[in-house]
Amino acid sequence: MSGPVAEFGASAAAAQTLGTLGERALVSWLRPRLPTRPDVLVGAGDDCAVVAGPRPGEELVLKSDPIAEGRHFAPGADPRLVGRKALGRVLSDFASMGAEPRWALVDFAAPAQTPADFARGALEGLSELALRFGVAVVGGDTSEAPVAQLHVFAAGVAPSGQAMLRSAARPGDAVFVTGEFGRSYESGRHFSFEPRLREGTWLRRRGVRCCIDVSDGLACEAWHVADESRVRIELRASDIPLSELCAAMPDSLRHALGDGEDFELLFTARPDVAAGLEDSFAAEFPGVRCTRIGQVAASEDNGLVVMDGAELPRSGYEHFSA
Amino acid sequence: MSGPVAEFGASAAAAQTLGTLGERALVSWLRPRLPTRPDVLVGAGDDCAVVAGPRPGEELVLKSDPIAEGRHFAPGADPRLVGRKALGRVLSDFASMGAEPRWALVDFAAPAQTPADFARGALEGLSELALRFGVAVVGGDTSEAPVAQLHVFAAGVAPSGQAMLRSAARPGDAVFVTGEFGRSYESGRHFSFEPRLREGTWLRRRGVRCCIDVSDGLACEAWHVADESRVRIELRASDIPLSELCAAMPDSLRHALGDGEDFELLFTARPDVAAGLEDSFAAEFPGVRCTRIGQVAASEDNGLVVMDGAELPRSGYEHFSA
Repeated sequence: MSGPVAEFGASAAAAQTLGTLGERALVSWLRPRLPTRPDVLVGAGDDCAVVAGPRPGEELVLKSDPIAEGRHFAPGADPRLVGRKALGRVLSDFASMGAEPRWALVDFAAPAQTPADFARGALEGLSELALRFGVAVVGGDTSEAPVAQLHVFAAGVAPSGQAMLRSAARPGDAVFVTGEFGRSYESGRHFSFEPRLREGTWLRRRGVRCCIDVSDGLACEAWHVADESRVRIELRASDIPLSELCAAMPDSLRHALGDGEDFELLFTARPDVAAGLEDSFAAEFPGVRCTRIGQVAASEDNGLVVMDGAELPRSGYEHFSA
Repeated sequence: MSGPVAEFGASAAAAQTLGTLGERALVSWLRPRLPTRPDVLVGAGDDCAVVAGPRPGEELVLKSDPIAEGRHFAPGADPRLVGRKALGRVLSDFASMGAEPRWALVDFAAPAQTPADFARGALEGLSELALRFGVAVVGGDTSEAPVAQLHVFAAGVAPSGQAMLRSAARPGDAVFVTGEFGRSYESGRHFSFEPRLREGTWLRRRGVRCCIDVSDGLACEAWHVADESRVRIELRASDIPLSELCAAMPDSLRHALGDGEDFELLFTARPDVAAGLEDSFAAEFPGVRCTRIGQVAASEDNGLVVMDGAELPRSGYEHFSA
């Protein structure tokens, strides 16, 4: 092993900071070291964890995700939208598993001088979305912190062996996305997005086995699927659906691939499942696009994502800038 | 309704901050507003949430809890102890329910200039405790934040209808505590404590129905039980077990009642369950004290805690200071 991951475990690590190490190296180091149990079916590394235990035929699905001021929302943002987004991000992960979220816990932390209305608004926005998708908020914690933040944890269920995984793409699959991409911040969509829970469940029932939600950028998420499935994903630039605002602004493809926070689903489907899928989807979800953007091929070694024949940077960014 | 809770909902709230409002008022406001579901058996307000859903005879138990630098540990603290404490606090809550924790998620956040060794140490300390109690770490998130913090979420199980609750104290019960109290910070016990998981399970099996873990201070936790059970709890000052360090320092009773972070169990038991309990406990857990410190009586209205006949302040503090 070489590079930052190996260094993290070595004696040189003492001088290293989290900033120089980077999140990816940290996560690579810790994932194989996490304690596990025989009933853990999907541990760290997918959108949600999946564990056995509930009634036969059902698995338990678990997920946590934080949002913080300055990173996921700007100071002065509407607190209702902040609360909505905090839960929405987690529900989007459940959508990508085809799972049903049922119970949530919320840790809310903020500076003492935060207006009380901020907390009230955030919890109202969160609760409104929870109610709409049948999720109960069963606990949590409030505390003081230098910046406002919400950590949402949720538990739910999925039918045994059917949760859609990042690792389940197979050569021959077609690659699809729901919705449109790019300029999520500028359009306000990073706040107003609808978690694709109904779409995710519908795709799982139809036989889709590989899915991920697009929070970090379409290119980055395609790489996650390629890495975890050890396949080659071939995308066509002209097929990437652009949001209206993104299409009207410069560098539209770069933003569609790299911006992130679209909270749409990227999934792959076997040829028999893919046949007619876009039409059936359109009939079921009239307001939501479903677009075929590429296919899955075998990879000789590790995962790989190419677009129009050239390797796609993970950020979807450098490639198209400058 | 009057006081800060009512004001929080009124138009005057606009001028109010979280600091002037206080955590108790915020929680009182939001608890009745949280969305629920028919399968939520115990929502916000107890040590853990309890929901139906898993196999018949079993309930699902959920808990989240954050720890942050400057609040739960000092800058420069041993990261292994920090990680251990982050999980230990949550396991202590499972102990107080008599529940078995199984799966945990960890959100880790810290400034970019944090030494990488801090993250490594914290996750190692956490994992070591997890392994010892059979808990799998199945996911989480790493991110940047102004101060180091860990948010731990855990899910586990308890036999149907047997989880020990704050609301289950009844007149005639005897009141007990495990362990000793006071000066938890000075003794390092706030880091080195053993979650009373085995003791909690044993107490539940023996028929104990009401239990809470002592994180906020013995007086405060006794008030939680009195409030939630609507009973009068009568404590005897001379029976409160003091830690060695606490007994050797000034104001020992004040510190035993108010310091908190003892992570011991406070529980009540019916006369038939209480009979011989201290002896059986001593035989089962030779290194751990179990002490009867009072009894439960009927309350005419709301909960009340008295010590040697006088009302005990919630903080256990003012009463004994000055």
